[in-house]
Amino acid sequence: MRMVDLIIKKRDGGELSKEEINYFIKGYTNGEIPDYQASAFTMAVLFKGMSDEETAYLCDAMEHSGDTIDLSEVDGVVVDKHSTGGVGDKTSLVVGPLVASCGAKIAKMSGRGLGHTGGTLDKMESIPGMRINLSKDEMIAQVKKIGIAILGQSANLVPADKKLYALRDVTGTVESIPLIASSIMSKKLASGSNCILLDVKFGSGAFMKNIDSARLLASKMVAIGNGLGRDTRAILTDMRQPLGLAVGNALEVKEAIDTLNGHGPRDFQELCLEASSIILEQAKIVKSKDEAREILLEKITSGEALNKLCEFVASQGGDPSYIRHPEKFELSKTIEDVYSEKEGYIEEINCLEIGESAMRLGAGRETMEDVIDMSAGIVLNKKVGDYVKKGEKLCTIHTNKKDYLKIKQDIHDSFKISEEEIKIPPVVHEYIH
Amino acid sequence: MRMVDLIIKKRDGGELSKEEINYFIKGYTNGEIPDYQASAFTMAVLFKGMSDEETAYLCDAMEHSGDTIDLSEVDGVVVDKHSTGGVGDKTSLVVGPLVASCGAKIAKMSGRGLGHTGGTLDKMESIPGMRINLSKDEMIAQVKKIGIAILGQSANLVPADKKLYALRDVTGTVESIPLIASSIMSKKLASGSNCILLDVKFGSGAFMKNIDSARLLASKMVAIGNGLGRDTRAILTDMRQPLGLAVGNALEVKEAIDTLNGHGPRDFQELCLEASSIILEQAKIVKSKDEAREILLEKITSGEALNKLCEFVASQGGDPSYIRHPEKFELSKTIEDVYSEKEGYIEEINCLEIGESAMRLGAGRETMEDVIDMSAGIVLNKKVGDYVKKGEKLCTIHTNKKDYLKIKQDIHDSFKISEEEIKIPPVVHEYIH
Repeated sequence: MRMVDLIIKKRDGGELSKEEINYFIKGYTNGEIPDYQASAFTMAVLFKGMSDEETAYLCDAMEHSGDTIDLSEVDGVVVDKHSTGGVGDKTSLVVGPLVASCGAKIAKMSGRGLGHTGGTLDKMESIPGMRINLSKDEMIAQVKKIGIAILGQSANLVPADKKLYALRDVTGTVESIPLIASSIMSKKLASGSNCILLDVKFGSGAFMKNIDSARLLASKMVAIGNGLGRDTRAILTDMRQPLGLAVGNALEVKEAIDTLNGHGPRDFQELCLEASSIILEQAKIVKSKDEAREILLEKITSGEALNKLCEFVASQGGDPSYIRHPEKFELSKTIEDVYSEKEGYIEEINCLEIGESAMRLGAGRETMEDVIDMSAGIVLNKKVGDYVKKGEKLCTIHTNKKDYLKIKQDIHDSFKISEEEIKIPPVVHEYIH
Repeated sequence: MRMVDLIIKKRDGGELSKEEINYFIKGYTNGEIPDYQASAFTMAVLFKGMSDEETAYLCDAMEHSGDTIDLSEVDGVVVDKHSTGGVGDKTSLVVGPLVASCGAKIAKMSGRGLGHTGGTLDKMESIPGMRINLSKDEMIAQVKKIGIAILGQSANLVPADKKLYALRDVTGTVESIPLIASSIMSKKLASGSNCILLDVKFGSGAFMKNIDSARLLASKMVAIGNGLGRDTRAILTDMRQPLGLAVGNALEVKEAIDTLNGHGPRDFQELCLEASSIILEQAKIVKSKDEAREILLEKITSGEALNKLCEFVASQGGDPSYIRHPEKFELSKTIEDVYSEKEGYIEEINCLEIGESAMRLGAGRETMEDVIDMSAGIVLNKKVGDYVKKGEKLCTIHTNKKDYLKIKQDIHDSFKISEEEIKIPPVVHEYIH
């Protein structure tokens, strides 16, 4: 077998066999197939696509390119949740403790933020002491004991994806549905959970810019997961405005705490309840979503959900007093409101611009080497559909940067205001399973 | 400027500016842009194409990626001829001396054979003593003195093409018309001639499999050349059967000698006269093709054309007695006829198979490291349109290999015989300028 022949086959619209895809992933992972052939191949895939079979073979080959985690020691169904990433997306910090407080087991490997999107690991690290590098044994022990662990991806999990993703990033071959689907799913499968819930976001702040491409990606991933014996479901959710109100690491943790206390922003609370309901169904803890809702609200009201967050934080070395007393989180030196120069209904809050502005205020990284300012970010006061008067507060910025006036103006300009009434958009647009 | 942005721009169907293309070629040549970005880019070009402007910018950037040759010292118009490569194509060895004997100046850098196609340099080296590595000064001095030089490409001519072609070869990105056009034309332009005649072949034995793609390639190259101030013309010629009768290095040199003596095979002689007529027009030595034909035939009859070949061979260190006495060329140990098992008209002689069979008999290289057997090859006895009886000779094989019976059978099988009368195809199908 020669890699150049596989490139030509794909370039000319052919379908690769399991053996051919294994040959590529094995050879690329061990360095026998050079980057320049892999990048030509991924570009050909971007143009010609991959069948469902090819995508499943690719995902399977990637999953087995390194270590895989065996969670069979954990009693019951272990669930994983994955979001394709967005602005203000602190869902895992709520859904994880919430479903764990209902008896579900959740084991999740998460990522860091880059560019305009945040990462769960960074948010967790805004809690003093919090460790994200658990060993495999620590992770299993913790899930057995308290029902939840969220950690960084272990070093030799899916090495093919690490190498291939870094290559795609610099060769213009990121935007391929089968490559994205197999990148995400290979990691989920290698992490060993029985069930997977995918939150596929669309809109300006998401990787998928419209609902059609989000649906396509979600369907591919659901097909792969179910085809390989894992109960996999997906929801398509809106990222045409930030999720909830807070954008920025400690600010989002505080919003997660508020939500577990029953005082979260409407859209964010709704997403958390929907996602948690599906997970409880997948874990066979409930028989219907109505039943799930009842239990979930009870766990919030009783304080058990927040207790689970404290337990989880403490178990990973974090200081749970910050969860009980969120006022302990250090604040930025500059906290300033942004006022509307117009009157009307909020039509759009450009999510990409909000995410990038938060990054520029210190809340994110432009390159993986940048250091994050945990206190920085933006807290919205208005969301799409809200009415705003001239001079009324649109949002508040938090920053330790001195030179923030241009950013503040950009944040102001990312609100689009209409004279006509704007409907409040739904949170979950579609369910795919 | 970032290379990844240029890849994405091309991938999405955009048109690159002169500055962007210069950035790519300069960066790739000096190693700042890695192979993996170049291969993703060429794959995107393969799918999305390049406008005439982009192709001209690319060609220009490649031409100036290394040394260029200044032929202004040579009096009069200097002509170059290029064939896209085929089986039995010894045209340069006839056209070169023929037009030089009419007073044209021809300076040509040529290549070696690989796979089923032969190379002029290899054919020249079947003449004992022949040197193909002339310095720039030697080349200019020789063209000034005797009107003709054919040599290998100098080391630092168009380094961007050397690097890019090697990459395209292993990444499935050879078959792109703008990339092929700029690869060929950058070398022609860097070699410094005023006029260029392109012989673009099509058919099973050629790189372009049909006349439409050959026409597209020829038009692109003619547009580039004329756009950059060189009189560039092209002919589209048939490679659905070998050119002439001889395939193999010394065998082809002998056929070239025969042709300069006025006894060449009909199709090959016709191509040589057509190409030479156009070159004499380009060099402004004649006013019409009819006038050219008259002079060319006179130079053949008078022996001046053959004298020029002897002069050219001697000037590059070769032994001209081989030209006067072709019986001096060493013969293969095995010379065997291949007989027809059927009766009828020759409908097709599969050129790719004949070329590969000649290579397997010893006449060519599978990899650049292989050593050529100069005496090996095939001499046809029948061409398309000829009538053959059962048991009549189709061709003769020449080889020093011991295990040639399978090859002999394959050669036999590459003749397709029909019961219906087959027309003799034309040699030149179209003229493009």
